[in-house]
Amino acid sequence: MTGPVHTTRDHGGGIDAAARRFGGRRHEWLDLSTGINPVPYPVGDVPMAAWADLPDTRAMEALLTQARRFWGLPDGTDILAAPGASALIAQLPRLAPATTVTINGPTYNEHEAAFRAAGWQLGDAGDAQVIVQPNNPDGRMRDAAEIPQLALTVIDESFCDVTPERTLIGLARRPGTLVLKSFGKFWGLAGLRLGFAIARPETLAELAERLGPWPVSGPALHIGARALSDDTWAEETRRRLAVDAARMDALMAGGGATRVGGTSLFRLYDVADARTWQTRLARHRIWTRIFPYSSRWIRLGLPHPDHWQRLEAAIGDPGRP
Amino acid sequence: MTGPVHTTRDHGGGIDAAARRFGGRRHEWLDLSTGINPVPYPVGDVPMAAWADLPDTRAMEALLTQARRFWGLPDGTDILAAPGASALIAQLPRLAPATTVTINGPTYNEHEAAFRAAGWQLGDAGDAQVIVQPNNPDGRMRDAAEIPQLALTVIDESFCDVTPERTLIGLARRPGTLVLKSFGKFWGLAGLRLGFAIARPETLAELAERLGPWPVSGPALHIGARALSDDTWAEETRRRLAVDAARMDALMAGGGATRVGGTSLFRLYDVADARTWQTRLARHRIWTRIFPYSSRWIRLGLPHPDHWQRLEAAIGDPGRP
Repeated sequence: MTGPVHTTRDHGGGIDAAARRFGGRRHEWLDLSTGINPVPYPVGDVPMAAWADLPDTRAMEALLTQARRFWGLPDGTDILAAPGASALIAQLPRLAPATTVTINGPTYNEHEAAFRAAGWQLGDAGDAQVIVQPNNPDGRMRDAAEIPQLALTVIDESFCDVTPERTLIGLARRPGTLVLKSFGKFWGLAGLRLGFAIARPETLAELAERLGPWPVSGPALHIGARALSDDTWAEETRRRLAVDAARMDALMAGGGATRVGGTSLFRLYDVADARTWQTRLARHRIWTRIFPYSSRWIRLGLPHPDHWQRLEAAIGDPGRP
Repeated sequence: MTGPVHTTRDHGGGIDAAARRFGGRRHEWLDLSTGINPVPYPVGDVPMAAWADLPDTRAMEALLTQARRFWGLPDGTDILAAPGASALIAQLPRLAPATTVTINGPTYNEHEAAFRAAGWQLGDAGDAQVIVQPNNPDGRMRDAAEIPQLALTVIDESFCDVTPERTLIGLARRPGTLVLKSFGKFWGLAGLRLGFAIARPETLAELAERLGPWPVSGPALHIGARALSDDTWAEETRRRLAVDAARMDALMAGGGATRVGGTSLFRLYDVADARTWQTRLARHRIWTRIFPYSSRWIRLGLPHPDHWQRLEAAIGDPGRP
């Protein structure tokens, strides 16, 4: 036996490690280390056939029809569903010969890891580029005019459903450009594993071949189709997240933190000592995200509506790190 | 809009196409065109965290611990979970330089498709080989001694859990050899998307990189761990499937079909005209599998216990094709 072979890069999550270090049982922890909507889309009843049968073309088309409508696909593009955006991120660097990729960091670290694993080098003026829109963790947004056309362009819009007016989806018309969408974050069902790529059909065909047939589970097809048809839920969720994000900013400002970026799914703050802040909140069993490249940045996801008091108490506590 | 980009090779399933051709509504059809156990492992309650949270290392390790125990991994090997064996099949040809692969057909056609998509040629005495154990559709079994050591060997044991004594898992100790396991077929939950590769850790590490982090859904981790720990269910299921397979053979023999192979998850019969048989059963809304390479072979999965009478009536009906 040789231990887990899955990749173990620096990510949010890691409640188990936090609990080992600071005590408490797993379910006692409030995990604010990710950017996942804490009020998920209702799972509802999943029909037995969705669990038992090989997911058929009809169920996939029902999902993709709703996805095309929800995101408003540009003419000349189509959409591919995958078991999570991360399954796509791992494959994308393999769609073009490995040369140099430009990734203006800091950003979500799986992109660099996937390009490196496929033999690419990081550098300026590459043949490929990665844009995370809005960027994680700082929330930076780009305009389409800033983005050159290269052999391969990955536009990761995993957090863009809270700001749909800033989508760069129009660039998916360009050859070699793919726009990624994540179901787990905005709809709050990260365990479901559902993500999408939008691009020209010939680009998607190559990617589909690499995923194999039946890439998405029956429950994900079923729940995803329902969620993507529910514009009312999406609008209400955007409003609630915006209100909650402002509440978080006020709370953190009261604790002495300065907001430096983020989206309404996660907030990025500048503090004197991020590690001290993380430790102080961890003593209250609240887990946050800090970054190996910054001693001052701390990122918090939003709590479930039931957990604000707990967060308020923790931030109000002067603590003794 | 350009239509679905997913691969659409000849597979079982396809009830929608059958219903378009022969009439009837989808739910009125009895699908015997696959080799999926018609009495699935009970899904039970799936905790909300399994849907909502990013599947964590602990849940993955809980699944893999049960998987290692259930299949009895040889020393020096480990196991990787994926969103279905088909996700692995699509990636395996990319683990070695594309030269010539030997696939003694007829067998499950996704292997050839995946190797061709990765640039391999089919031929004798290749640098890679694919063994499906037991073979689909004829049920042929190999002994370990028959299988040479090559740069890349794929042993697909998707249907081997009904005959665990015939596993070739010991060969997973060899460099470049991977043994695949499917959760969907024996446990009857094909929609869940769960499959495994067993191999040396360095081989699995490369494969894990290609799947990305969090490859398996929270519900699949949860249900899979429970199912793989349930030896009683597995033993009872093997017994029931064996009894039902014998019942199917008797029924088909009464209709004039000769059994030529299969496993207790699917049966292969020789008939005078397979297309006529398929059509005759389709008029009773029962869908079966025939093959582009044989005019005489017809393959049937087993019906759910509630549906035997219907199958008996259909086979007993002389029909008029």
